[in-house]
Amino acid sequence: MSTPEPFAAVDIIIAKRDKQSLSADQIDWIVDAYTRGVVADEQMSALAMAILLNGMTSDETIRFTQAMLGTGIRLNWDVLGRPTADKHSTGGVGDKITLPLAPVVAACGVSVPQLGGRGLGHTGGTMDKMEALRGWSGDLTPDEMLAVLQNAGAVIAAAGPNLAPADKKLYALRDVTGTVEAIPLICASIMSKKLAEGTGALVLDVKVGSGAFMKTVERARELAQTMVAVGNGNGVTTRALLTAMDVPLGRTAGNALEVQEAIDVLAGGGPSDVVELTVTLAREMLDAAGVHGKDPADALRDGSAMDHWRRMVTAQGGDPDTVFPVAPIQVDVTADRDGYLTKLDAFGVGVAAWRLGAGRARKEDAVDLAAGIVWHAVPGAAVRAGQPLLTLHTSREELLPLAESALRDAYAVGAADEVQPRLPLVIERITA
Amino acid sequence: MSTPEPFAAVDIIIAKRDKQSLSADQIDWIVDAYTRGVVADEQMSALAMAILLNGMTSDETIRFTQAMLGTGIRLNWDVLGRPTADKHSTGGVGDKITLPLAPVVAACGVSVPQLGGRGLGHTGGTMDKMEALRGWSGDLTPDEMLAVLQNAGAVIAAAGPNLAPADKKLYALRDVTGTVEAIPLICASIMSKKLAEGTGALVLDVKVGSGAFMKTVERARELAQTMVAVGNGNGVTTRALLTAMDVPLGRTAGNALEVQEAIDVLAGGGPSDVVELTVTLAREMLDAAGVHGKDPADALRDGSAMDHWRRMVTAQGGDPDTVFPVAPIQVDVTADRDGYLTKLDAFGVGVAAWRLGAGRARKEDAVDLAAGIVWHAVPGAAVRAGQPLLTLHTSREELLPLAESALRDAYAVGAADEVQPRLPLVIERITA
Repeated sequence: MSTPEPFAAVDIIIAKRDKQSLSADQIDWIVDAYTRGVVADEQMSALAMAILLNGMTSDETIRFTQAMLGTGIRLNWDVLGRPTADKHSTGGVGDKITLPLAPVVAACGVSVPQLGGRGLGHTGGTMDKMEALRGWSGDLTPDEMLAVLQNAGAVIAAAGPNLAPADKKLYALRDVTGTVEAIPLICASIMSKKLAEGTGALVLDVKVGSGAFMKTVERARELAQTMVAVGNGNGVTTRALLTAMDVPLGRTAGNALEVQEAIDVLAGGGPSDVVELTVTLAREMLDAAGVHGKDPADALRDGSAMDHWRRMVTAQGGDPDTVFPVAPIQVDVTADRDGYLTKLDAFGVGVAAWRLGAGRARKEDAVDLAAGIVWHAVPGAAVRAGQPLLTLHTSREELLPLAESALRDAYAVGAADEVQPRLPLVIERITA
Repeated sequence: MSTPEPFAAVDIIIAKRDKQSLSADQIDWIVDAYTRGVVADEQMSALAMAILLNGMTSDETIRFTQAMLGTGIRLNWDVLGRPTADKHSTGGVGDKITLPLAPVVAACGVSVPQLGGRGLGHTGGTMDKMEALRGWSGDLTPDEMLAVLQNAGAVIAAAGPNLAPADKKLYALRDVTGTVEAIPLICASIMSKKLAEGTGALVLDVKVGSGAFMKTVERARELAQTMVAVGNGNGVTTRALLTAMDVPLGRTAGNALEVQEAIDVLAGGGPSDVVELTVTLAREMLDAAGVHGKDPADALRDGSAMDHWRRMVTAQGGDPDTVFPVAPIQVDVTADRDGYLTKLDAFGVGVAAWRLGAGRARKEDAVDLAAGIVWHAVPGAAVRAGQPLLTLHTSREELLPLAESALRDAYAVGAADEVQPRLPLVIERITA
């Protein structure tokens, strides 16, 4: 005999449809029952749409996140005897920050137990990038994660089947039902995974701009405040930075291309915006973890971050000296006149890299590790007619027109006074 | 090789989520692709929720209805050589009007080719009621429908698999996803079936009040206007009456109980509100079908309606002299003091009858033909302490508390000046 269910899914859907707040019991039940398969996909998607259109209170969102967390186990790293911290980015174009950041923070004495994600749509994912390293695997058990943390101070692993299983199921559903953009569900998805990974401190990099899911500072602030409240309310010291995603980060978008750029940063070079954001986020993580007196910039200069990177890659089976695949087709996009690069739109560049094969349209698709885009100038740079502005990398010639179409309005060359204003790299800091 | 699909479902969901109008091509494709199984249930339910919350324009609704109609065949009764008309009720409590109405209209020379529905929730359905007649079946082919029409002038059949198949699939989905109440989808569901049945004229009985899906005149008028536009736009002379469903119709709710009441009306007796609404709707149907000079009230008085009823029942395998099942458990609800019945709430009575076994919670459930409620007084009637107000009929004693709980606030006895005002039986007539 099975226990009768205490609620009917349709009543909960109707309550949210009619703009009512859901009770803690209703939220706990529907998340659990959906994970068990008692609530059907078509019911959860209708609820997700009602949540997207009618919203949730902060209390509902916190409870929803806890319910998602409660469908699985929560890791614990007390045995390390060191503070832990992690960072999560809401996703952007050219955002490879995790790759230098995790070893930098580890080099400063704080362990980084990260559950990484995959790219979807026009944004990249850390797991895809790391897989450009020959032999590297993120499929680790908690014991294997612990061994890597003890060895290298940082680990990047996929969320296993026991970590927030509700999130895996719900994320796939939202992707095909137009409900990805619901702030309460974004918060619950991110935070249930970050709480499950067992980090003691968390810094959220909430991206703002055309290349981000949050197009405006107001929407990003709302999401950041909700997530900070959820994190702190669950015993994780949490803060958020709103950062710029109007222009893509660094000089590359695409998996192998971005890993190479990250290695440049770990070697003490690399684009200045990637270095600056890495150091800024590392300082926040150290501070949130209660570690003071270490400067992450030193770890990039003195080679200790690179040392931790190589140990982390090696400990996860990867070859830190991987010779990366090179796209057989590389096509330059050139300036049609003398002038200034007046804009470089993150969304357009991200979609173009995706179309070239760097991203996936569905979760089960494979990515082309070599595909992507390199840009040779940033907005405000003086350019000459015929000079390459971007180079498109792909393995399939037939994809080029799709990428060129996505780039059509993504860049422009004009007069100096036509250069578009940019968001500051760090827009706002949110601690409560 | 399959043809590539011209749209992605998620783009159409997002467009409606973001309050855009869908194009005719988008609507045609998604209805067809859903019927083919290319669009998943979880995508259609998310779209249904977005339609419920963000609405559709009149043009979108008309197109959606046509697209649903287009997933199946459309019947045609030109071969009869007589005008055709049908009535559709949006559903109420005690609404057995179709049973006397179809033979009355047939007796006046207009054929009635009805595709009937089943009850769901607290409202009854014509098919369930007719099945209280021993041997009767509504599972007819179009040829069998034609034979019954030629013999009896009226037929009540279930929509076969080739008639608006999209509606069958979508209706079942809406039922479990909290999206039944979306006006564009209600319109498309009703009108695609009514257009498919091939009637030449159509009268819509749009119920208003607690026992109806439309609780206010405003919502009912909106639905009625949309449906009238869809019908007339598709070559069917269509008009609507908004009628009262604040108080249940007649004196009975429940399948066998309602058939007996319908037979009383056909025999020239029966409750005055059932007679009045039958005659009013019959006059509208005759007028819409272009037949004048016949009075439906005569057909009730002179026995010709009863004659057509018996022929129709017999032609569909039923026994017009069925001895109806009687519920083994009958419990009176009595007045606790002298006074007046001040209210009798249609929704409460409908829910109570449903709980007693007259209705179904899910499409696949069976109904208890004998279950239901008889009320012995209507609002405004003088009652004495201890006098039975209602009698509950059921086959399962354990259902009584559920029904009594549903009735708790559904009736009251008080002073004459406390009698609640009622809606007029016919509230409004809508022809365009």
